[in-house]
Amino acid sequence: MINRDWAALEEEVTSWIKEAASQLRESLTKPLEISEKSAHNDLVTNMDRSIERFLIGKIRTAYPDDKIISEEGYGDGVKNKHGVLWLLDPIDGTLNFVMQKRFFAISIGIYENGHGRAAFIYDVMADELFHCISGSGAYQNTRKLSALTEVAIDDALIDLSPTWLKPNRRIHEEIMTDIVRRSSGTRAYGAASLELAYVAAGYLDAYFTMRLSPWDYGAGLILIGEVGGHYSRADGTPIDILTKQSVLAARPGLHEYMTSHICEQVNHGRFISEPR
Amino acid sequence: MINRDWAALEEEVTSWIKEAASQLRESLTKPLEISEKSAHNDLVTNMDRSIERFLIGKIRTAYPDDKIISEEGYGDGVKNKHGVLWLLDPIDGTLNFVMQKRFFAISIGIYENGHGRAAFIYDVMADELFHCISGSGAYQNTRKLSALTEVAIDDALIDLSPTWLKPNRRIHEEIMTDIVRRSSGTRAYGAASLELAYVAAGYLDAYFTMRLSPWDYGAGLILIGEVGGHYSRADGTPIDILTKQSVLAARPGLHEYMTSHICEQVNHGRFISEPR
Repeated sequence: MINRDWAALEEEVTSWIKEAASQLRESLTKPLEISEKSAHNDLVTNMDRSIERFLIGKIRTAYPDDKIISEEGYGDGVKNKHGVLWLLDPIDGTLNFVMQKRFFAISIGIYENGHGRAAFIYDVMADELFHCISGSGAYQNTRKLSALTEVAIDDALIDLSPTWLKPNRRIHEEIMTDIVRRSSGTRAYGAASLELAYVAAGYLDAYFTMRLSPWDYGAGLILIGEVGGHYSRADGTPIDILTKQSVLAARPGLHEYMTSHICEQVNHGRFISEPR
Repeated sequence: MINRDWAALEEEVTSWIKEAASQLRESLTKPLEISEKSAHNDLVTNMDRSIERFLIGKIRTAYPDDKIISEEGYGDGVKNKHGVLWLLDPIDGTLNFVMQKRFFAISIGIYENGHGRAAFIYDVMADELFHCISGSGAYQNTRKLSALTEVAIDDALIDLSPTWLKPNRRIHEEIMTDIVRRSSGTRAYGAASLELAYVAAGYLDAYFTMRLSPWDYGAGLILIGEVGGHYSRADGTPIDILTKQSVLAARPGLHEYMTSHICEQVNHGRFISEPR
């Protein structure tokens, strides 16, 4: 166990995030420099890089022994979960940032020896901070989030991209179609960290994707765990916070319903395939 | 042409909407009475009915000769487009209202002899009013919305429900799958009036559904027209504001690209079917 004043850290990180957010809001008044990464809709802007450098500078100064995994590559080559590990996305929802100039978030999850200890997801334009120190309750700004209760599939609102409902390399398209058909409805907001925070806050009952990176889910899973939500890979196996993988997070009960459904479908010959 | 002071009407309707909104916010502190309409996820609450009665009372007192089509049935049996017609949804996004307690809107569209004259879409919890008097520009609160420019399909963010990407009665599931595959991404927020307002504001490039009612799209289409966006049924034919139908609204160019694609697919034997 590392001796750390987590309450002091919470205050400190919150102040960094608010400062980064004001840089982001300011940047929206000027032209952005945008470039493509792996695909046409996988964008990075000068601001992703600038906010990442800013936050990493703060972390390295305050906590020089900690390790960092971050989206734009200024972090460390992290090989194991020993010590304190920061999972950092300077702008989650870059496409929203570029196209909508809102509905994007700064996401920071902090793990100690592989266990979630602190989470921060900040919707910059809505000024809405979802945050927790593990064991002390989760909050949306100053409002304490309630423990998640069970919900039946036919009353559930499920967040997923239509990508997983049409032919794709990661999951047979009929597997989630069955879930969607039984659910109350679907939503897709385009910023995974916020979508996970929404599960924690009870705005959504489940979030599903076949491909998500540590910096995208790092903070969200800590928040969800804090309010009694369940999460795993699509097939119910545990998430390894060092790698890109599928993520299914939901209210208790609903999570088990969905993973059971997926496993049953796989047992009947339909495929799922984790990203490598 | 009806002699009416539209600027005065805008002020008046805005004040009604703000009053209705404060009733709605107040109602969220108390238990809701919820019942199902056509389906398990087609809900109505005591507040949909109460807000509808409140707004219809205001309209009838101020404009006794006008006609009203509204969601919960307190309106008129309207058979033609003569005179001034109000298309009113007291709570658009009832599922969001019930489950998320946010992301729902009051939507009012006013038509004169079939032509859009005034539109109001109010995101109650975000305190965000999209509004216009036809010919005087569209606004998001006090910010004037820019004219919509063209965008290529591969840069487009498209709002649609996954319903239309899996087997359904209204459209062959492959038709929109092709569009989604070429687009930059998809979103789904679960409140049609706001999704249409987002097209007008440039947050989304297109909105598509195979089934929408006059009270859902009445205001949104006026806003979109005011900023130079295009709209029609899925096959490009004009919308009849008295009936439930498909709606495709988008930036200029993108709208034509999408309707052409749909018509081409229909010509190749794939089906679309308007609701009756």
